[in-house]
Amino acid sequence: MKRCRNGELWDFEHEILGGDDIILGIDGGTTSTVCVCIALSDPRVVSPSMSCPILARVVGGCSNHNSVGETAARETLEQVMAEALSKSGSIRSSVRAVCLAVSGVNHPTDQQRILDWLRDIFPCHVNLYVQNDAVAALASGTLGKLHGCVLIAGTGTIAYGFTEDGREARAAGAGPILGDWGSGYGIAAQALTAIIRAHDGRGPYTKLTYSILKTLDLSSPDELIGWTYADPSWARIAALLPVIIACAEAGDEVANNILLDSVEELALSVKAVIQRLGLAGEDGQEAFPLVMVGGVLEAKRRWDIAKKVINSISKEYPGVLPVWPKVEPALGAALLAWNFLSKDYQQEGI
Amino acid sequence: MKRCRNGELWDFEHEILGGDDIILGIDGGTTSTVCVCIALSDPRVVSPSMSCPILARVVGGCSNHNSVGETAARETLEQVMAEALSKSGSIRSSVRAVCLAVSGVNHPTDQQRILDWLRDIFPCHVNLYVQNDAVAALASGTLGKLHGCVLIAGTGTIAYGFTEDGREARAAGAGPILGDWGSGYGIAAQALTAIIRAHDGRGPYTKLTYSILKTLDLSSPDELIGWTYADPSWARIAALLPVIIACAEAGDEVANNILLDSVEELALSVKAVIQRLGLAGEDGQEAFPLVMVGGVLEAKRRWDIAKKVINSISKEYPGVLPVWPKVEPALGAALLAWNFLSKDYQQEGI
Repeated sequence: MKRCRNGELWDFEHEILGGDDIILGIDGGTTSTVCVCIALSDPRVVSPSMSCPILARVVGGCSNHNSVGETAARETLEQVMAEALSKSGSIRSSVRAVCLAVSGVNHPTDQQRILDWLRDIFPCHVNLYVQNDAVAALASGTLGKLHGCVLIAGTGTIAYGFTEDGREARAAGAGPILGDWGSGYGIAAQALTAIIRAHDGRGPYTKLTYSILKTLDLSSPDELIGWTYADPSWARIAALLPVIIACAEAGDEVANNILLDSVEELALSVKAVIQRLGLAGEDGQEAFPLVMVGGVLEAKRRWDIAKKVINSISKEYPGVLPVWPKVEPALGAALLAWNFLSKDYQQEGI
Repeated sequence: MKRCRNGELWDFEHEILGGDDIILGIDGGTTSTVCVCIALSDPRVVSPSMSCPILARVVGGCSNHNSVGETAARETLEQVMAEALSKSGSIRSSVRAVCLAVSGVNHPTDQQRILDWLRDIFPCHVNLYVQNDAVAALASGTLGKLHGCVLIAGTGTIAYGFTEDGREARAAGAGPILGDWGSGYGIAAQALTAIIRAHDGRGPYTKLTYSILKTLDLSSPDELIGWTYADPSWARIAALLPVIIACAEAGDEVANNILLDSVEELALSVKAVIQRLGLAGEDGQEAFPLVMVGGVLEAKRRWDIAKKVINSISKEYPGVLPVWPKVEPALGAALLAWNFLSKDYQQEGI
C-alpha cells in the first residue's frame, strides 16, 4: 500500500499509531455538515448494514461552496473530517474511502474541483467519491446501493434516480422561481398568495388567512406583503407548512387544493425520472425503491402528502417500493463508499 | 391668501418676483421621478385638458422611500420640484397645488408622512395631495378624473379603481411571490419554468428553450438555474417578455398557454376591483373607463395581450371603455390636482 500522505500531519495524528480501516461519509448541506466515521469490515465478504459500527459523528457548519465560498466550505469539510478521525482514534492513512455528498454539486466541473481538494488532504491510496447530496439521501434508504429514485421535499424539492448500470437523471430542483411547486416553499407561497387573493376579491375565502396571520402575529393580509419581502430566506416561508396542513385537515378547501397540487407536482418529478431511466422496466411493472426524504414527506400526519404521492406514482408504476430511510444521509454516504469499494474489489478480482 | 411660507427661500426665488398660478404634478417611481409644472387657468370655469401648457418638465432619480430611504427620497423630490419651478420662472408662493403620486404609498401612515414633508416645504395656502403612483396612471388616462379602473402590467401588475364618491379598491400588486402571475415577471418566470420542465421530462417540448437560451447566450437549460439566481432583479427576468410573445406568435403552444393564463390573471384583477366597487352599476352594464398602462399591455403586437384582457372583461362588463393614456403619469398627477382644486372651489361656492 502506497503511503504518499499529503499535507502536514494533523496534531492528533502524532499520538495515534494507526488503527483499523475506516470509511468517512459526509453529508454537506447548506445548513450543516455531518461527518460519520465507520469501521470497515472486509468488503470482499460482508455487505454494509445498518448495524455497522459508527466510530464517530461530527457536525459542522455549511459546506455548500455556492453559499459560503470555496475556502470556507473547504475549511468546514477539513475540520469535520479531522475531528471525526480524532474522535474515532484513527489517522488519515487508515482511511480506505471518503464519500462526500454535498449540495451545489451539479456539474462534472464542481465534482472535479472538490475531488482535487480531497486529493490534497488524503494519501493517494484513499478512494474518493464526490456526489450531489441527493445521492447520499438515496443511499441512506438503499443502504448504499445506487439504484432507484429518491424524492427530497423539504424547503426545496428534487427527484434523483439511478440505474444499476450507472445512468442517472434528475427532475425539479431548480428552485422556487423555476417551478419547484411541490416543495415546502412552493406550498407555503401558494398559501400566502391564496390569502392575498381572498383579500382582494380574486379568490375564495380560506381559513389560511386567520391561521397564518395568527402564526405570524400580523393583523391584516396587507401586512403579509411587507413580511414576505422583508427577508428573502426560502426556509422562513417554507416553515409555514404545518399551518397549511392543519387547515387542510380542518376541511379548508383552498389549503386542500394547494396540497393536492403539490402531490401532483412531486409525483410528476418522480415519474419523469422513472420514465427517462426506464426504472420500472419496459412494461412499467418492475420493482424499484423510492426513497422519501424531507419535511414535506413526513408520514405521520392525517393529511399524508407522501402517501398520496406514492398512490399517484403506483397507478402508473405499481412496482414502486417506498422507503423511509432509517439512517441519516451521512451514513448513506459512508455506505455508498463501502459499496463502491466492494465493486472495485470485485472488478479487480481480489 | 395667507403667505406663511416655510423654510428658506430657494436661491432662484430671490430673482423671481412671482408669476402666474401653477400646479406641480409628480410621478415618483422606483426607477425615476418626473415633475411637471403646468399653468393653471381659472379652475372655476375651465376643465383641464391635454392641451394645458406644460411650463417645465424635470426628471430625477428614485423617490420610493421603501427603496432608497426617506432622506434620499425627500431630497430627490425637493430637487425636482425646485428645478421645475426654476425652469418655469415661478416661485413657491405661486404654487396652487401639488399632487405627488409615488410608489410605495400603501397605507394612510405613508401618505401622512409624505404630506408632512411637503407641508414643510410649501406655504400653507398650497393644496397638497399624496397618492399611490397607480392613481396618477389612472388620472393620465382620464385627464385627472378619479373614476374608473387602471390596470398596470409592466414588471409587476396592479389593478386600482375609484368610484366618483371616493371609494377605492385594488387587486394584485403584491409582488411575484404573492401571485402577480399576469405581470411581465410572472409571464417570464413561467416561460423559464417551462424550459426546465421540458428539459427534465415534466413538460412538453417548447420553442422557448431555443429562443430564450439564444437570447441569454446560454448553452443548456441547466445553465438557466445559475442565470436566474445570479441576480434577484425582477426587471431582468421580465425583460424576456418580447421573446415569449414572439414564440407564441410563431405558434408555440406552451408560450401561447402562458400568455392566455396571463390574460386571465390580469382580467381577474380588474374584475375583482369592478365587482368590489360596483363600477359597472347594479346590472353590470354601466360604462366606466379602464386605463391600460405598462409594457405587457402595449397594443401594437400581433399577440395582443391587452385586447384579450378587454375581451375577457367585456363579456361580464360590456360597459368597459379601454383607454391608452396619451399623457404621462406626472401630467396625470397635475391634472388630478387641478380636478381636486376645482372640486374644492365648487364645494366652497367660489
